[in-house]
Amino acid sequence: MLEDILRRSSPEWTKGSGPDSDVVISSRIRLARNLELFPFPHMMDEAAADEVLGHAGRVTAGLNESGGWGSFEMFRLNDMSALERQVLVEKHLISPQHSQDPRGKAVILGRDETVSIMVNEEDHLRIQCLFSGLQLQQAFVFAGGVDDVVESVLDYAFSAQHGYLTACPTNAGTGLRSSVMVHLPGLVGTNQAGKVLSAIGKLGVAVRGLYGEGTEAAGSMFQVSNQITLGQSEAEIVNNLIGISGQIINQERKARALLMSQAREQVEDRVWRAYGILRTARILSSDEALKLWSDVRMGAEMNLIRGLSRQVVNELLMITRPAFLQYVEGREMSPFERDCKRAALVRERLTS
Amino acid sequence: MLEDILRRSSPEWTKGSGPDSDVVISSRIRLARNLELFPFPHMMDEAAADEVLGHAGRVTAGLNESGGWGSFEMFRLNDMSALERQVLVEKHLISPQHSQDPRGKAVILGRDETVSIMVNEEDHLRIQCLFSGLQLQQAFVFAGGVDDVVESVLDYAFSAQHGYLTACPTNAGTGLRSSVMVHLPGLVGTNQAGKVLSAIGKLGVAVRGLYGEGTEAAGSMFQVSNQITLGQSEAEIVNNLIGISGQIINQERKARALLMSQAREQVEDRVWRAYGILRTARILSSDEALKLWSDVRMGAEMNLIRGLSRQVVNELLMITRPAFLQYVEGREMSPFERDCKRAALVRERLTS
Repeated sequence: MLEDILRRSSPEWTKGSGPDSDVVISSRIRLARNLELFPFPHMMDEAAADEVLGHAGRVTAGLNESGGWGSFEMFRLNDMSALERQVLVEKHLISPQHSQDPRGKAVILGRDETVSIMVNEEDHLRIQCLFSGLQLQQAFVFAGGVDDVVESVLDYAFSAQHGYLTACPTNAGTGLRSSVMVHLPGLVGTNQAGKVLSAIGKLGVAVRGLYGEGTEAAGSMFQVSNQITLGQSEAEIVNNLIGISGQIINQERKARALLMSQAREQVEDRVWRAYGILRTARILSSDEALKLWSDVRMGAEMNLIRGLSRQVVNELLMITRPAFLQYVEGREMSPFERDCKRAALVRERLTS
Repeated sequence: MLEDILRRSSPEWTKGSGPDSDVVISSRIRLARNLELFPFPHMMDEAAADEVLGHAGRVTAGLNESGGWGSFEMFRLNDMSALERQVLVEKHLISPQHSQDPRGKAVILGRDETVSIMVNEEDHLRIQCLFSGLQLQQAFVFAGGVDDVVESVLDYAFSAQHGYLTACPTNAGTGLRSSVMVHLPGLVGTNQAGKVLSAIGKLGVAVRGLYGEGTEAAGSMFQVSNQITLGQSEAEIVNNLIGISGQIINQERKARALLMSQAREQVEDRVWRAYGILRTARILSSDEALKLWSDVRMGAEMNLIRGLSRQVVNELLMITRPAFLQYVEGREMSPFERDCKRAALVRERLTS
């Protein structure tokens, strides 16, 4: 199953079937959970880590037996190559931190990549659910269901006063982080992104680039997530982000309409050139691919390019990533080889 | 007939059927001729200019009657709009100088644009023949045939000592200028163009950009022509340029092979991106179009792009010119409108 997942460029979320997928690429719910009677991962010895992995194995069995959550399997990161782990990072199935030192760590994966559970990352368990479009509520319900199954097979560290206990206090309480990945070429193109996103930052959410903290907003993509996990109910946290997402969606749609009314020819030119280059280039850097991708996605969503499915566009995000490229090729490649392979994969995907 | 010519993007030379058309776009022979008993055009009054135009009318009739040279018609520049004259300049059928002050001037055009005769430019008559590829000898024979017909209906100013007399002494003697338009993306791309062309400049030829003196070598195109018209026989002049052209062709082919052996991926990337942009852009400046054209022509000639005919590529040179664009559209256009129209025409030509 692992190889299927690593090779697949079309996880469930790429279908783009969720609501407001013109702006919201995906919605994610993450629950931080820890086991009673075990020290947090950063304080654990090898034996304790192994024991937690044993409990995680029971979680996998529980999920498979309870049904309705799909088919799950646990993979120890130690059994994977660095390249395989990096593909999981690119797919957002594990965090960069989780992949770095694989000892004593694992990930439980659902077959369609909707659910992943990191074992012995910063917390013993981090349950993640990824849905297409704006489906925070649905992802939250789904994650809650998985959480219930997990809780039925092991004991969480929970305090009536502090809620779920977590390794880092900023996650304590609900242990809930909800986030949306939004594509804002309209706001970026009209120079409004900074203004809109900093205003939103005052509402208790964090705005980051594509690959989490410390990365820039490449391809006009931004990750918006709640900051506060304590002192609000789970429903409040999720509903707050749903409301904020709605505002972002409205602003982005207005900005796209503004672009079209003010500079239709320039927008069409940019969109079509990007599409032309992606379909013909023989050498394509990761950065350039993402910039061009952003223009093409906007063009497809604005019906300037017709007949280009949202799924194909979303899949480009997968197939242009460096580790995925190398995994598909079956070997490590130099940056130049990757740029050639990237161009070949994109061409193939867009002209088939 | 004039409208047919002005609208046509496919004059005979665009077929690219001549030898060495991978490097030589076209070959041109120009004969400067003047009438006895008339002052040179810059010294002529209106009545004399009219009289020369009358003689030119007889030339047209003579060409049509003698047969074998195609069908000819004379057009007075005064009867044309500035835009129509500019299209003739872009088609190299008249010189920029000829179009500027249209009074007392005319052009005799052959239907397939192989022959044009400017009347009352710097000299009374300038017979021009334009052939595809390296066909200087053929163009010279053809021009000589036209010259014979002209001479059979009127009297040339000719001196046994100085040969054909011309308004500017640099054209006296044979009155012959032979030139080739060459496309040298290989030499430009390997930074050898300067070296090769300056070496050639020492062999008594002039090297210029696309639209004659004072223009730069846009699109890696260069016009190479003889400098000397006196003291050499016509055959020597033509053969000298044929020899020089052969050297340029060899150097250019070697340079293209070198590019492919040293940087195949980069060449393919450049060629295909150019093709992609030309097929998709919505706004295209004249300069950018010419740069991209050059890459695409090289790619087609090197078989990197297949199924793209030389004629289609050559026609792009016509349809991207500003006056042609406006003539086809039937009105004057702003630079921005032209850039949009240019992109539309190129897209249509490359995707049909």
